[in-house]
Amino acid sequence: MSTDPSPFAGTLLGETIAAVVPRDPAAESAARERLDRMTKPPGSLGVLEDVAAQLAGIAGSCPAPLPEPASVAVFAADHGVHVQGVTPWPQEVTAQMVANIVAGGAVVNAFAAGLGARVVVVDVGVAAPLDATPTLLDRKVRPGTADLAVGPAMTLGEARQAVETGIEVATALAADSGCLITGDMGIANTTASAALVCCFTGAVPAAATGRGTGIDDPTLARKIEVVSRAVSRVPARPTTPEAALAVLAEVGGLEHAGLTGFLLGAAAARVPVLLDGAIAGAAALVAAALCPTAMEYVLAGHTSVEPGHASALEFLGLRPLLGLDLRLGEGTGALLALPLVTSAARALRDVATFDSAGVTEKN
Amino acid sequence: MSTDPSPFAGTLLGETIAAVVPRDPAAESAARERLDRMTKPPGSLGVLEDVAAQLAGIAGSCPAPLPEPASVAVFAADHGVHVQGVTPWPQEVTAQMVANIVAGGAVVNAFAAGLGARVVVVDVGVAAPLDATPTLLDRKVRPGTADLAVGPAMTLGEARQAVETGIEVATALAADSGCLITGDMGIANTTASAALVCCFTGAVPAAATGRGTGIDDPTLARKIEVVSRAVSRVPARPTTPEAALAVLAEVGGLEHAGLTGFLLGAAAARVPVLLDGAIAGAAALVAAALCPTAMEYVLAGHTSVEPGHASALEFLGLRPLLGLDLRLGEGTGALLALPLVTSAARALRDVATFDSAGVTEKN
Repeated sequence: MSTDPSPFAGTLLGETIAAVVPRDPAAESAARERLDRMTKPPGSLGVLEDVAAQLAGIAGSCPAPLPEPASVAVFAADHGVHVQGVTPWPQEVTAQMVANIVAGGAVVNAFAAGLGARVVVVDVGVAAPLDATPTLLDRKVRPGTADLAVGPAMTLGEARQAVETGIEVATALAADSGCLITGDMGIANTTASAALVCCFTGAVPAAATGRGTGIDDPTLARKIEVVSRAVSRVPARPTTPEAALAVLAEVGGLEHAGLTGFLLGAAAARVPVLLDGAIAGAAALVAAALCPTAMEYVLAGHTSVEPGHASALEFLGLRPLLGLDLRLGEGTGALLALPLVTSAARALRDVATFDSAGVTEKN
Repeated sequence: MSTDPSPFAGTLLGETIAAVVPRDPAAESAARERLDRMTKPPGSLGVLEDVAAQLAGIAGSCPAPLPEPASVAVFAADHGVHVQGVTPWPQEVTAQMVANIVAGGAVVNAFAAGLGARVVVVDVGVAAPLDATPTLLDRKVRPGTADLAVGPAMTLGEARQAVETGIEVATALAADSGCLITGDMGIANTTASAALVCCFTGAVPAAATGRGTGIDDPTLARKIEVVSRAVSRVPARPTTPEAALAVLAEVGGLEHAGLTGFLLGAAAARVPVLLDGAIAGAAALVAAALCPTAMEYVLAGHTSVEPGHASALEFLGLRPLLGLDLRLGEGTGALLALPLVTSAARALRDVATFDSAGVTEKN
């Protein structure tokens, strides 16, 4: 009789973690070697050479296939901590913006349309009832979290259910996507993000908590105090997968849980996944604690002005492709980075070598 | 009888400078106002909100048309300073890379193909004879500059001819392009770029001179010494258009001159123009000295690792859209930034407003 040491044995989460394997070092070496033979000075494509090699390692082939088509999954949920007055936006804006995205009117839609990417919304916990449509998946775990300022945001079972929802969404999209892109919508979700960043990186609440969609000084002070109360309830820097899931349940959001699973599912499917901003960065901290190898499939699209985001990326060792002072979410920053990833793949696939083009190399 | 005070009266250069008008402030205000009504937190698109407003001001309409299709003009030329040993690449690589670009094998081609942009090469001064093709324009002013280390790189007349060539190319491409993109190819052209940056910004040669395509310490020392000798011959910070053209002739390259005209021509045609890296940045310094208003039509695609480039952009007050440690040229960095510009225009055109989408604004 075999025993599985995983704390999540027998669950979709456990199976997914077990399915994540490292990138292919041979394909990655082949990409590096080809990059050096291409008709350009060695290293002159900068960060895009790392991206090209990473894509080859993910695909297990050099050149890698183009990361097309891309699919954005916007995980939407509400937050009980809204009652603490951490944002000037009414909670119903979450549902209204979900409707706007489904109707094609949000920034994520405008960007996606230009790039040939599709957008699906996953309701993992919007407070209001929503009717499912082909582009709005009803996967509501509960109608918003409990108030993380005063107690657990959700139960361990709810956290795992939302994570597994994210896995399922990633698995389904990966079947016909060359790249997955994280998106999010949830009024007050930068509060939960800041709490997660503090718990996983050890950052202090005053440093990791930002103005989100734009809040004044008294609201920011209240938000920092709320984050501090939440963070004080959990042990810092969880060192086991079980502890990571417990932190997620205590101070996270349902969309963070969904995104965590989305990252794990993308890695298990060996598809590159582009992170959007602060909410995705916080979810990536959870995913890395659950399965460090999964981070090999992740690219950071941009760095948000939300201060905890840079902390999260630095902790994860991820260099953001863009820095445009964005603070919108929805997947918009990741979509803006997508053409960079595609261009890196195109260069690796299409550019002539010194030999083939008859170009003399440097002395 | 009217008199024209312009030092270039009666020339294409003079006419072009006279044709450059400021952006339309009404269209720009309308864009800012629409950006604030769009279904997103005000300001949350960061730098892209500035880009969207700039595009509206350039077009004189809100929303602005999409910057499509884009056209890259790769100005190619050789440099007499090559004999000073400032680069390990043989001079014939300029002509070989022009052939590679015309054949579609270079990085600029791979990026352009993915973005639906066209690429034309303009021979303003390649040392070797080249046969013209539909995508290789024969506009050779002279077969490479003279050695700027020991005397003027070109005559004032040659400089003006190359500038006017750039104007003509921009005018022709602007007729059916929504965006112009600078490109360049010329072995040793970072040496001339560094000299131009020093002359126009006051930077010292040791700070503005970099490793270009990748040179060792002795070569870098030689390159700095060469730049110093060139810069010492001209008065710092030219304050008149005539003086600017004289500096260009003394220490610049034929592709810098072509790019200078390209920027002026784009501005006169009221088409946005995206700067690539170090060579384009140096040319922009010349263009700004000839016609400051022309800079209102310019966007900086990226910041190169070549140190003089950041100095040039800072001097011009341009914020680069990307920072990816690129040092390739050809127009590659500007092409990578193009989707950001397009996305900004799409957002301004397509995103719903709070009113139209029925989304509640913040309290």
